[in-house]
Amino acid sequence: MKSDAFSFASDNCAGVHPTVMAAMAAANEGYVHSYGDDVYTGEAVAKINRLFGGEASVFLVYNGTGANVTGISHLIRSYQTVYCAAAAHIHVDECGSLEHYAGCKVVALPSDDGKITPEAIEPCLVGIGDEHRSQPGLISITQPTEYGVLYTPDEIRQLADFAHSSGMKLHMDGARIANASAALNLPLEHFTTACGVDLVSFGAAKNGMMFGEAVVFLDQEAARAFPYVRKQGMQLHSKMRFMAAQFIAMLTDNLWLENARHANAMTRRLYEGLCHINEIKVTRPVHCNAIFACFPKELIAPMQERFHFYVWDESINEVRLMTSFQTTAKEVDAFLTALVEEAGKSTIEGVKVN
Amino acid sequence: MKSDAFSFASDNCAGVHPTVMAAMAAANEGYVHSYGDDVYTGEAVAKINRLFGGEASVFLVYNGTGANVTGISHLIRSYQTVYCAAAAHIHVDECGSLEHYAGCKVVALPSDDGKITPEAIEPCLVGIGDEHRSQPGLISITQPTEYGVLYTPDEIRQLADFAHSSGMKLHMDGARIANASAALNLPLEHFTTACGVDLVSFGAAKNGMMFGEAVVFLDQEAARAFPYVRKQGMQLHSKMRFMAAQFIAMLTDNLWLENARHANAMTRRLYEGLCHINEIKVTRPVHCNAIFACFPKELIAPMQERFHFYVWDESINEVRLMTSFQTTAKEVDAFLTALVEEAGKSTIEGVKVN
Amino acid sequence: MKSDAFSFASDNCAGVHPTVMAAMAAANEGYVHSYGDDVYTGEAVAKINRLFGGEASVFLVYNGTGANVTGISHLIRSYQTVYCAAAAHIHVDECGSLEHYAGCKVVALPSDDGKITPEAIEPCLVGIGDEHRSQPGLISITQPTEYGVLYTPDEIRQLADFAHSSGMKLHMDGARIANASAALNLPLEHFTTACGVDLVSFGAAKNGMMFGEAVVFLDQEAARAFPYVRKQGMQLHSKMRFMAAQFIAMLTDNLWLENARHANAMTRRLYEGLCHINEIKVTRPVHCNAIFACFPKELIAPMQERFHFYVWDESINEVRLMTSFQTTAKEVDAFLTALVEEAGKSTIEGVKVN
Amino acid sequence: MKSDAFSFASDNCAGVHPTVMAAMAAANEGYVHSYGDDVYTGEAVAKINRLFGGEASVFLVYNGTGANVTGISHLIRSYQTVYCAAAAHIHVDECGSLEHYAGCKVVALPSDDGKITPEAIEPCLVGIGDEHRSQPGLISITQPTEYGVLYTPDEIRQLADFAHSSGMKLHMDGARIANASAALNLPLEHFTTACGVDLVSFGAAKNGMMFGEAVVFLDQEAARAFPYVRKQGMQLHSKMRFMAAQFIAMLTDNLWLENARHANAMTRRLYEGLCHINEIKVTRPVHCNAIFACFPKELIAPMQERFHFYVWDESINEVRLMTSFQTTAKEVDAFLTALVEEAGKSTIEGVKVN
Repeated sequence: MKSDAFSFASDNCAGVHPTVMAAMAAANEGYVHSYGDDVYTGEAVAKINRLFGGEASVFLVYNGTGANVTGISHLIRSYQTVYCAAAAHIHVDECGSLEHYAGCKVVALPSDDGKITPEAIEPCLVGIGDEHRSQPGLISITQPTEYGVLYTPDEIRQLADFAHSSGMKLHMDGARIANASAALNLPLEHFTTACGVDLVSFGAAKNGMMFGEAVVFLDQEAARAFPYVRKQGMQLHSKMRFMAAQFIAMLTDNLWLENARHANAMTRRLYEGLCHINEIKVTRPVHCNAIFACFPKELIAPMQERFHFYVWDESINEVRLMTSFQTTAKEVDAFLTALVEEAGKSTIEGVKVN
Repeated sequence: MKSDAFSFASDNCAGVHPTVMAAMAAANEGYVHSYGDDVYTGEAVAKINRLFGGEASVFLVYNGTGANVTGISHLIRSYQTVYCAAAAHIHVDECGSLEHYAGCKVVALPSDDGKITPEAIEPCLVGIGDEHRSQPGLISITQPTEYGVLYTPDEIRQLADFAHSSGMKLHMDGARIANASAALNLPLEHFTTACGVDLVSFGAAKNGMMFGEAVVFLDQEAARAFPYVRKQGMQLHSKMRFMAAQFIAMLTDNLWLENARHANAMTRRLYEGLCHINEIKVTRPVHCNAIFACFPKELIAPMQERFHFYVWDESINEVRLMTSFQTTAKEVDAFLTALVEEAGKSTIEGVKVN
Repeated sequence: MKSDAFSFASDNCAGVHPTVMAAMAAANEGYVHSYGDDVYTGEAVAKINRLFGGEASVFLVYNGTGANVTGISHLIRSYQTVYCAAAAHIHVDECGSLEHYAGCKVVALPSDDGKITPEAIEPCLVGIGDEHRSQPGLISITQPTEYGVLYTPDEIRQLADFAHSSGMKLHMDGARIANASAALNLPLEHFTTACGVDLVSFGAAKNGMMFGEAVVFLDQEAARAFPYVRKQGMQLHSKMRFMAAQFIAMLTDNLWLENARHANAMTRRLYEGLCHINEIKVTRPVHCNAIFACFPKELIAPMQERFHFYVWDESINEVRLMTSFQTTAKEVDAFLTALVEEAGKSTIEGVKVN
Repeated sequence: MKSDAFSFASDNCAGVHPTVMAAMAAANEGYVHSYGDDVYTGEAVAKINRLFGGEASVFLVYNGTGANVTGISHLIRSYQTVYCAAAAHIHVDECGSLEHYAGCKVVALPSDDGKITPEAIEPCLVGIGDEHRSQPGLISITQPTEYGVLYTPDEIRQLADFAHSSGMKLHMDGARIANASAALNLPLEHFTTACGVDLVSFGAAKNGMMFGEAVVFLDQEAARAFPYVRKQGMQLHSKMRFMAAQFIAMLTDNLWLENARHANAMTRRLYEGLCHINEIKVTRPVHCNAIFACFPKELIAPMQERFHFYVWDESINEVRLMTSFQTTAKEVDAFLTALVEEAGKSTIEGVKVN
């Protein structure tokens, strides 16, 4: 990627929000206790806790994989199974970390939009009580999914009820949970704590932070021994004030939500532009800050020379376009303009702007 | 700790060097590929590699525990044993992470200064080839040790030769390796690569960075599949540019070495001051940036009210005092002055300044 | 199960072949070195080795799960994936042992007869070299499959070639491999070593032994450190002579093959009888010693009162019937007669003997 | 070892008691449910349970390592430490199985007779509640120890009290627990359940069985999910009746105790003979069926040509002599006679019979 290219590849390619960066610099004063025994961490944890209703246990860790894997492993035992969607980050993009760390089975269920339902999981629950079978342990959902699609609070509540009635826990991978809160226009608490979720990986790095996620146990009792798991899991940061300061900045004046709203709005703008271009077919519901769309094959290479984005499924020329807090309207418009230009050069029929 | 108190507790309590902080801010420009596929990471890795002679394989990870555990686990199999000193961080301070992650045995050998020798390990090597016994896998040393004591290059070479002739690897936990390089007045390469070390955890956070360490394999072939281990081990950072930018800043104009030299000098100044106070008995060799000393019991509480530091061994009133790049001569002198003051208040005999 | 009921539930419900039992008693003489350092084990291992062409490395372990899990874990690393059929014993019936022990991912592919093909696996091999993805490690097939269906030598060779060209190994779960050899009328070597299989779990307990299986590495070099894995995996027996004596008895005068041929013949007799009963629909190919068939729902309960067998898929009234070395023609005929009787009582149409 | 040589090497070198062998043959009748769902297993489990007072949960597994590792792993979590003696089988002779399976730390304490005390463990319990430290989880003792030495019930009760007051469990490796019961002349219950032990590995293979041990949880609630651990741990036998039948035979008419008494008596006879031979120095207390003694170096090789036994510590010419249910007075006397003969040939002074 040319350093000056606009990127629609991932919200990971964005930088750090200036307010967050300033907060880190401001925290760089004097001596502060390490490993979280400091006022910054206390404040960050309290702020995150409030988002979830104030009765949670919150632990800061390095990254999303760390949050997912240490959190889930703490709630299950190795003879249990974690159910998730086939597109789930824990299944596809974490190099088998969960199996290795928790020693458990991971069973992935097919899904076009990355969502799973009690109906899809239920047929898997055979052999309950049979010692030869790995037993139901936990359902993990991603909100929004890896395809940018949202669960409604009702759907989450049904999954939680189903999980609990089957002796399972419900985990939410919230790598982009801010985008969900913004898109649903609902406080976090309403689609987590209030719905019976047991564990949330509260993501922040994709939304303008530099590093750091939070493991949030909504049952404080269940969290009791988690500090040891975090440390044994190589996820305890020494100079914690700098992770905490970022969270404080994000959760002050709703910066985290503003960032997410902006990212969602940029995707909406991009989506509307794409809708006017024939032959570009959006393939999944567009709820947050990601668009999946089939492009005419001829357009992909020239567009990738000018912008950075990924081809998701080569077999159908499906690309993924993501926006972030950093994306500007100008960047979106530049992308759309370029698309029209390249389409104009194209000799294929159908690639016409409406 | 009062936020304005000077800290001699740990180099972890210091902040981030301003040059490093500036480098992070400067890296916050535009879009950059994530997960290390960027020019910052390329440069950081190359700079670290050069320190080790240019034939190493270098991987950035989050923290020291992550570096130790993922690196070592990659070089051994679960039916092997890691030998280390009883004071080793991997044995004492990582919550059993190595055993959990690598599934191996860890055998810790007693040592007053944190150093181990071939002679101490040799008697453990019984049952070679006996399937009932965990087999020799790796020797892990810390340079400088957790007591701040240095191995000489000769000692390291002997350990490496011994390790290799016994079918083992040699790992160096270099959480404070800069302090070793400064104190030995030797390039890193001279007491690592040149001595036959196989794997180094190259620490930087204690020396002025915010987060990030490097796993350095001196045998590139052995490192081949390590990217998967790093990812599976939850140690792969997304916005890697910000980790890499710190390393670049540290390794430009020898900042890393300057920081370490300064920290060592501050410890030397503190040590010399302590030597003039009767009844304070320094208990371990002072080579780098840590002092272990027995204090009169009556002095510990009042001094801890004014400064932050740890009691290491309560049974003998041994305290640990550490300095960092951030420690100033003024802070050291304030500590010494306070000590004299408190000693003056003391009615016990012997606590007198020479 | 009434102790006098005939069982078609599993070949595990049979006892021990009298010749095997006699061999165990005969081995109970004097003192013998433990843990396999004895003449019995030497002879058993040599006999097993000869079955595979004489260039294998053979290790006796307790059971099939032990053989599968320790053997596979030795050939892969935790960041790799094992591919198998959805019906595979390692996936369904070993309580997640492979994930826990090897720390790897297990990806199960749908299959009606329990067989998998290169074509089914190939689409999974995306993300090769991408550190976020668990990498291809090993293909595990069961011969015959859990549905009693056989791979041809050609199919196995294709799987081995595909595995090797993709950097994977090929494992064969041979829990009932004797039944395969008998049904194919081919020496073991012809559909294992000669086809490029890397690892076989050589089953014997289902074929007339009391306990014991063998892990067979067809690449001796790959097996070098396996003794440690067997011990660490809790699979090394102390009084090994009694396990070895069973294998010797089985592999003398082709008892293992005779037992399998008999079991297969009894299944064939049963199958032919079932074919004459309307409305009983055999659902999977019948190659060895198992029949899967949909029974009229009304017949299942009364038949289960008289014989022991399992309902495999309740939703379609599919039952599994297995025979063993111990099954007699009289037992088969009694089952068929009872079926006709019960069908006669039935008022439903269609349940008529042809 | 010549097959006709008498063995004092290990109770593992003995065969199977004829009554046990007969019971296995008798169980070889008809069809029986597999995996423990049978009357044999019900009876065996009930008999074992009665030995422990009738309130235990009992699970049959393959071997001692399997019993120790699966049982302990079920009672702790990976961030905890298991304390044991340096000679403990779990530490020395199980190839690191416990670390690998449970992911925990194992800390071994020096001990001449294989016993440990609360006083020896207490100094290790630093860092309680400190997330950097692996936390106290379980104390494992061996009764009798690997040196054949007994804990008194009082000592066990003190260890249990200490364990519980420190938040730990107490495990007893009872590989030779029958020899302890015989030597103490106390029912099992008196030095297990009554003393507060939480978990016992009830050994039987060394005492005349062919294979099989029992995991005994004295707290039934703690055992609830153990069936999954047993299966996932590769320790669930299919044709369980043959393991159960052995236990039934052993626990009928006190055969298990008679076997142990006999083995102990043979050791006593051997010990008394050795005491009459100058220069043979017995090095550890002789409580059960093992003798550790320093032999004149000149005697070891010729004696090993005539009998099978191990040199335990070559540096001091210490040998281990073990007897079993199978050892006869004639064998013991033959050993002693040979010793006198070889000593007579010896030209060294001091090797004289008193």
